[in-house]
Amino acid sequence: MTSPDTLAEPVPQATPGGVPGETVYFDGRFIAKTEVSVSPDDRGFLLGDGIYEVAAAYDGRFVALDRHIDRLRRSLGEARIDGGVADPMETVFHELLERNGFADRGKAMVYLQVTRGAAPRTHAFPKGQVRPTVYAYAAPFPAMGDLQAGVAAITHPDLRWSRCDIKTISLIANCMANQQAKEAGAFEAILVRDGVALEGTHTSFFAIVDGVVRTAPLSNLILPGITREIVLEACRRDGIEVAEEPIPVDMLPAADELFITGTTTEVVPLISLDGRHVGDGSPGPLTTRIAELYRIAAGLSS
Amino acid sequence: MTSPDTLAEPVPQATPGGVPGETVYFDGRFIAKTEVSVSPDDRGFLLGDGIYEVAAAYDGRFVALDRHIDRLRRSLGEARIDGGVADPMETVFHELLERNGFADRGKAMVYLQVTRGAAPRTHAFPKGQVRPTVYAYAAPFPAMGDLQAGVAAITHPDLRWSRCDIKTISLIANCMANQQAKEAGAFEAILVRDGVALEGTHTSFFAIVDGVVRTAPLSNLILPGITREIVLEACRRDGIEVAEEPIPVDMLPAADELFITGTTTEVVPLISLDGRHVGDGSPGPLTTRIAELYRIAAGLSS
Repeated sequence: MTSPDTLAEPVPQATPGGVPGETVYFDGRFIAKTEVSVSPDDRGFLLGDGIYEVAAAYDGRFVALDRHIDRLRRSLGEARIDGGVADPMETVFHELLERNGFADRGKAMVYLQVTRGAAPRTHAFPKGQVRPTVYAYAAPFPAMGDLQAGVAAITHPDLRWSRCDIKTISLIANCMANQQAKEAGAFEAILVRDGVALEGTHTSFFAIVDGVVRTAPLSNLILPGITREIVLEACRRDGIEVAEEPIPVDMLPAADELFITGTTTEVVPLISLDGRHVGDGSPGPLTTRIAELYRIAAGLSS
Repeated sequence: MTSPDTLAEPVPQATPGGVPGETVYFDGRFIAKTEVSVSPDDRGFLLGDGIYEVAAAYDGRFVALDRHIDRLRRSLGEARIDGGVADPMETVFHELLERNGFADRGKAMVYLQVTRGAAPRTHAFPKGQVRPTVYAYAAPFPAMGDLQAGVAAITHPDLRWSRCDIKTISLIANCMANQQAKEAGAFEAILVRDGVALEGTHTSFFAIVDGVVRTAPLSNLILPGITREIVLEACRRDGIEVAEEPIPVDMLPAADELFITGTTTEVVPLISLDGRHVGDGSPGPLTTRIAELYRIAAGLSS
């Protein structure tokens, strides 16, 4: 059993976004990252006015890339940014792997963001045609093996906006909450609104109570997590009872197991919450099974 | 009486942030705007992780610059960004006027933003010392004379986060709401949370009901507007009754007058709300008086 205060996020094995000689995608071209120059008029920089997407690849194969592209289109639509920028993205994602040495080996993520473009600063959208700014990079992501031993989390008030279903780059609330987690020696902050535990700052949240795997139902208050979705499908196929129902914080002390999911996080057990052990303080059997089911569903394990 | 559908924001007389030959402040230096290159790793660009401030100058004299600098320090403190960057800002603001031809004439605004700096993308704050990115520019602001004739507004659900007292650049909720206003032919969206009208997307909001000037009390749900504060002080000095109390939306149809305030907006009458005239559809007498009191308090009129 590990002490909760040693369960902070492991130090990444490589610097995300900082591969030497890295080639990124910017303004429709593949260029060296060092050549990227974002305009100070960019509405991403000035107003957080954009959306993003992240997909993970293992040995050059993306997990559920079609779903990520679908969600990208949805985010663009909801934010009313030109959806046409999504068209070449499947190709761009693969090309970024290729150009950065991840075409057939290693664990890599592709991060993509689209802002409403560069224009004189106004709250309202720019008048006339302004081309969205598209920026994407590939990077190795930390070996998550250590996380499988379980991580700590804290609960934190959900201070975010009311359209958390849009994967926006206006993320200061997420940043501040995750920083609180880190300073508490934890990996993630589970955000609580009106007495309900919704999701983490960058992960989905699950509680296993009386053998039922619960997670918040889709609404404007959570991101439609793709790993969340794959996990739910895998559980249902495997006969594990799931419930997309609100998780009152009052229910958490009675939970047998807790876990979080995410594109690069996969399925990670929470072994402590707010400094108290979850269960006996080690990964529970159902979470371990679900982690394996996820890996099978994602094509990472046979 | 003007028809509500003609009350959209006037086209700016000059392009904010786009003065030819403009000199801006970036990374501690005054440089040509065209030379500014924001890193794609900037946490402003990636995460909306920063704060901003705007001050207005008339013929080279700033209005309440000390209060703007104080609010800047407060925003930095609440966002936990190094407050030291505020130290030279009074000088920087004046210098930007000087270098852009506003030292002694014209109406100019200085926009300043500070982000948590450039670092590999993580939700948590960067580890180690990362220098905040400081960017500021001066620009003429639109002649607001036309606005004195009154503008239209709409009400809109307040979808923003729960720390609206921090002047953050994570503004997508404000952008989307203001865009809704523009598409409704209006200047501003008055944001409503839990049945209470709080403030605009970039202005403070006042309602005059039974001769009392009401505006939302300071809390985590509104920005501590500096023009709001100056207006309240001026009203009190002049014997006009004010109440910093919630404004239920139900109260709005009974309001005699409505107005908004802001650093570059000053005091602007709302003459229609959601397509219905406010009062008789022209600026009310008390708002007109308050607009003049503001100008006197701000040193713009004698």
